[in-house]
Amino acid sequence: MPSEEVPKETAAPKEKKTAIAHKLATKQQEISVTEFFEKNKQILGFDSRSKSLLMGIKEAVDNSLDACEEAGILPDVSVRIDRLNEEDYRICIEDNGPGIVHKMMPNVFGRLLYGSRFHALRQSRGQQGIGISATVMYGNITTGKPAHVISKIEGEDEVAWGMDIVIDTKTNRPIVTNDKALQWEGHEHGTSIEYTIKGRYVTGKQSVFEYLKNTAIVNPHAQITFHDPDGTKTVFERATDIMPPKPKEIKPHPEGMEIGDILKYAGNSSQKTIKAFLKNDFSRITERLATEILEKSKVNGEKKPEKLTREDAIAILDAIKTVKIMAPPTDCLSPIGDTLIKKGLMHVLDGLRPEYYATPVTRSPKAVNGNPFIVEAGIVYGGDIPADGQVQILRFANRVPLLYQQGACAITKAISEMDWRRYGLEQRGGKGIPFGPAIILVHVASTKVPFTSEGKEAVAGFPELQSEIGLALRLCARNLKSHLNKMERKNKTHAKFEIVQEILPDMAKKAADHLGRPVPNLDRTITRIMNVVWVEPTVKKEGKKLRKVTYTIYNYTSLPRTFRLHAQVPKEAVNLSLFTHEHFLDMNDEGKANWEVKDLPPSTNTTIEFELSGDMADTFDADDIYFSGLNPVMVMGAEMLPGDWGIKGMEIVQTDESDFVEEDEEETMEAEDLGDE
Amino acid sequence: MPSEEVPKETAAPKEKKTAIAHKLATKQQEISVTEFFEKNKQILGFDSRSKSLLMGIKEAVDNSLDACEEAGILPDVSVRIDRLNEEDYRICIEDNGPGIVHKMMPNVFGRLLYGSRFHALRQSRGQQGIGISATVMYGNITTGKPAHVISKIEGEDEVAWGMDIVIDTKTNRPIVTNDKALQWEGHEHGTSIEYTIKGRYVTGKQSVFEYLKNTAIVNPHAQITFHDPDGTKTVFERATDIMPPKPKEIKPHPEGMEIGDILKYAGNSSQKTIKAFLKNDFSRITERLATEILEKSKVNGEKKPEKLTREDAIAILDAIKTVKIMAPPTDCLSPIGDTLIKKGLMHVLDGLRPEYYATPVTRSPKAVNGNPFIVEAGIVYGGDIPADGQVQILRFANRVPLLYQQGACAITKAISEMDWRRYGLEQRGGKGIPFGPAIILVHVASTKVPFTSEGKEAVAGFPELQSEIGLALRLCARNLKSHLNKMERKNKTHAKFEIVQEILPDMAKKAADHLGRPVPNLDRTITRIMNVVWVEPTVKKEGKKLRKVTYTIYNYTSLPRTFRLHAQVPKEAVNLSLFTHEHFLDMNDEGKANWEVKDLPPSTNTTIEFELSGDMADTFDADDIYFSGLNPVMVMGAEMLPGDWGIKGMEIVQTDESDFVEEDEEETMEAEDLGDE
Repeated sequence: MPSEEVPKETAAPKEKKTAIAHKLATKQQEISVTEFFEKNKQILGFDSRSKSLLMGIKEAVDNSLDACEEAGILPDVSVRIDRLNEEDYRICIEDNGPGIVHKMMPNVFGRLLYGSRFHALRQSRGQQGIGISATVMYGNITTGKPAHVISKIEGEDEVAWGMDIVIDTKTNRPIVTNDKALQWEGHEHGTSIEYTIKGRYVTGKQSVFEYLKNTAIVNPHAQITFHDPDGTKTVFERATDIMPPKPKEIKPHPEGMEIGDILKYAGNSSQKTIKAFLKNDFSRITERLATEILEKSKVNGEKKPEKLTREDAIAILDAIKTVKIMAPPTDCLSPIGDTLIKKGLMHVLDGLRPEYYATPVTRSPKAVNGNPFIVEAGIVYGGDIPADGQVQILRFANRVPLLYQQGACAITKAISEMDWRRYGLEQRGGKGIPFGPAIILVHVASTKVPFTSEGKEAVAGFPELQSEIGLALRLCARNLKSHLNKMERKNKTHAKFEIVQEILPDMAKKAADHLGRPVPNLDRTITRIMNVVWVEPTVKKEGKKLRKVTYTIYNYTSLPRTFRLHAQVPKEAVNLSLFTHEHFLDMNDEGKANWEVKDLPPSTNTTIEFELSGDMADTFDADDIYFSGLNPVMVMGAEMLPGDWGIKGMEIVQTDESDFVEEDEEETMEAEDLGDE
Repeated sequence: MPSEEVPKETAAPKEKKTAIAHKLATKQQEISVTEFFEKNKQILGFDSRSKSLLMGIKEAVDNSLDACEEAGILPDVSVRIDRLNEEDYRICIEDNGPGIVHKMMPNVFGRLLYGSRFHALRQSRGQQGIGISATVMYGNITTGKPAHVISKIEGEDEVAWGMDIVIDTKTNRPIVTNDKALQWEGHEHGTSIEYTIKGRYVTGKQSVFEYLKNTAIVNPHAQITFHDPDGTKTVFERATDIMPPKPKEIKPHPEGMEIGDILKYAGNSSQKTIKAFLKNDFSRITERLATEILEKSKVNGEKKPEKLTREDAIAILDAIKTVKIMAPPTDCLSPIGDTLIKKGLMHVLDGLRPEYYATPVTRSPKAVNGNPFIVEAGIVYGGDIPADGQVQILRFANRVPLLYQQGACAITKAISEMDWRRYGLEQRGGKGIPFGPAIILVHVASTKVPFTSEGKEAVAGFPELQSEIGLALRLCARNLKSHLNKMERKNKTHAKFEIVQEILPDMAKKAADHLGRPVPNLDRTITRIMNVVWVEPTVKKEGKKLRKVTYTIYNYTSLPRTFRLHAQVPKEAVNLSLFTHEHFLDMNDEGKANWEVKDLPPSTNTTIEFELSGDMADTFDADDIYFSGLNPVMVMGAEMLPGDWGIKGMEIVQTDESDFVEEDEEETMEAEDLGDE
């Protein structure tokens, strides 16, 4: 752009100016990646002593769990913290993983940006090749001591190898000392890392204990043992022996690719033609699709991939946008699943006796920049959860709890941008973290979780991702709201119930006594006042693993009633008592059970009873009971069977009452504008 | 740690396990820094199209301002955005800086982790050597096009050089094409970069416009021209020709150093002895201090620095903690300063006509990890600033506005952790971002701002830093609170004033008329009711640059009064009218002016008048008026001269009234616990 203006400083001596450009040039130099992170340790999460202590442990435990899962081993991880003096701690993390081959140990622990999972499109905790070596570096910077690493791979001939490792920050290469074979007292195979670091051991929300506890929640297949600096040992017991399905590695999906991506893939391809490249190097591109893409883009498919030009790439990307490509496969992901989320939450929150666990939501997979991801959400409400503060947020990414940088996280943003007043929580102006007795859990699983920094503390706000989190939250919140509505209705009708069941008869008795007349039969009066079918659940707990469930159904209407009841029961907990009950009809594979009550006479009641036993017994929520075959306005204590329930209820056959059906609160489930922050 | 337990999986075939460790080993590989950032573009701030558009411009403008300041040139920066098609934008940023030497151009723009400011301990905007090359990379990835860079250094013989630059992401090295000398239509010297990028142009809070506007606020010496995609040209005019003092480069300060730091410095030192190393390679270590540190640490000061052991380093660091070392020098920093913060805020917020600008606070420097930093804060209140939402937060780091990641920022955390209810703002539970008609500005200046990620969007929560931000905010909020108190008192007494000045005389007149008697003299009555000295400021605006200030002082007490008034006036705006006024006493270098009123008779008044003219005239707040020589309980409309005002007022000599002095609200100015989040 031309500029007429003569800058003021041109009057200054010219020699000086020229000198400046040259002087500046002499200062230009390369910055080593190690030096960069050494100077910017807050980026890796080492910005306070307490956080540093946690970060190192987190990186090591993440690696242990990843390694065990890759090898199909049920993880057994132990964490020990010893306090050496005021600020110096010795940390030891040991696992029963597959071990690391001797010659790879130095680079794995002593070199930043070195790892096995960076290029793999598959869900894993560690992906950057930074975490554990940063821990080794930071331990060394703060205490001057090397990390001591031991690893043993399986095999009767194999020995364990131990070595001291330090990173040379100028070259980003490991310096190894005391490398020798040794007798390991640990597992048959596995890895242990011991390092000394300046830190501060804290308790509470952002503590090592909290991190390990939350890790146990979302990794119920892992056994985690923790020795804290005071010598207390805590074992987070393995809750299941079933390994989560092992995520499969996938090829890049063409969705959301940039020109640079396709050019790079083409340059690296071992395929002979562009057509083969499209077909074989990407996920979900079939022979037919490859042909279609090449036809539309007018690119010669017989060219070698490395001959792909920028114009070809643009044309191919444009063509890709116009063809229909299947969503990326999801066996590369490992979501936690509704039941385990609920089970995990219950396990941890037991002391708070929450009133309600909203059914967790697992969304179907989407992709961002070609990386598939799944969002899961759960809400716990009421009981002894503090009601006067902001709701507690539990954030997870690839089964790793996120304890820091809540404010920076797309999960928090999605929560803050939702109007929770519509779902029964307090929130000033319908924005910000809501207030109330609730805990909100969100898990993001992806082949590539977009963290905001190398410290992996918060998920970045990619619009597609934030919108999915919002949708999962809304679905879950809708469950909460319907529960709160139900509770409110129940409370209201309970008052009515008390009047007719206790106060009216009492009054009648007194009046009769007073007048010296016989007590009148109130059945018809009560029936006229109530005019409902009343379902009243009760659950009797017997120990931790047995629940006796009873539904009492009162017919306070003037006609005999025939209807069905429906509930989803944890099928692992079901026993014979369910199937032998007189009203029982059937149950499907998902545990959706049906009962039928026939011709229940007016002013009488009946019961449905069954037992649940075992680990999953306490996950059953007796308030989640549905009916069919009755007009909804005449039922209290159960919800009308929703259309998406998947099993058939009864058509409404008796319509002597008004057909008025309460209108559902309008639900706009479209993503709101979930743009940047 | 020994483990008795036999892991479950040992039953599995052994060959498979061994294979896994070896299979995993084959996947271990180096990750290039360019590949890392290419895959983690959200870390650099390129996580949405709109943010990407802003990020690139921000990096280029930061570099332009840095370069101009290093060369002592008043910056003249222009930004042009052209929209090529739906998502493709061509961006051009041009400056009048010193230019870049031809052979350095490829690395500066085409290589990550390469720069001149990373190792320098001195305030600058860019420090990482990542930003502009990341922009070049991201532009290339998304559009396939190279960046075009032109630079010309000063000198009559010099020509401009232009070249196209692309980064090879495998090697992190620039690929240069079309490198040639050319005629530049730009400035006499300077640099221009033009690149194409996929983006989205947005307006509002996180827009390019907003970023440039805020940049102009805190860089009043810069001229910034903006051509938006619609062809609209906006010029943010240079507000001052005075360059901010050029930050000096300093040596590392021993405060907060880690063992690794001192070992590294020792290894790199060119000094002959450890003593010379301590004395010459660090800031604030004198000959005497070096001797003392060596004596206390029992380290041999005559050894070569490279012979320093880990034990020596620990001993030296321990010794450093016990000796008194001066705070780091601060000429490496360039704070904005109270006046310019206020001026800048006024300039931008003009339309909102705020009621009050709390005097901005510039804290004295502190250090974190040996890096000096200064925190500045300002608050604007009332007027047309929306009162029903959260306060607006303006965040700056090293004179760069931070528009994203507000939730992740130590500035936001410091604001959220303060109980603003004590300072007149609404805040639920005394936590979180407060609500009310206020805008809070915080600037952090440091030789090394600890950003939470390479995108430089938020400041990390180092405890020392967050605590300083909290202190600056509290000081500023105290000003706000005292203003709000003053306003409240003023409103109350104004009601009283109206009664005695208007209603009472009116009533007296009516009563007298009614009775046919002469109107009584109410002076003594009014005096008895009021019993105060009343200071009433009025400001007459004449155009943008002239203010006529009048203080009317009424003596509504029963005795003659002698007292002084004190005000801080913008000394650049003062003219003869101040010095020639009958009550004027003197004014110091800071613009603190004093007036004396002698023996003002009861029931009379007098005035103090002066004019302010020029650019700074409107920064004067006439309500900031102080008195001395009177008992505070008998003064309305002025505050008692604070003890820290720095100039001498008058002792209170007349004490015929009660000596009761209103107790100041208790101010615990110690840092609250500002730990992690």
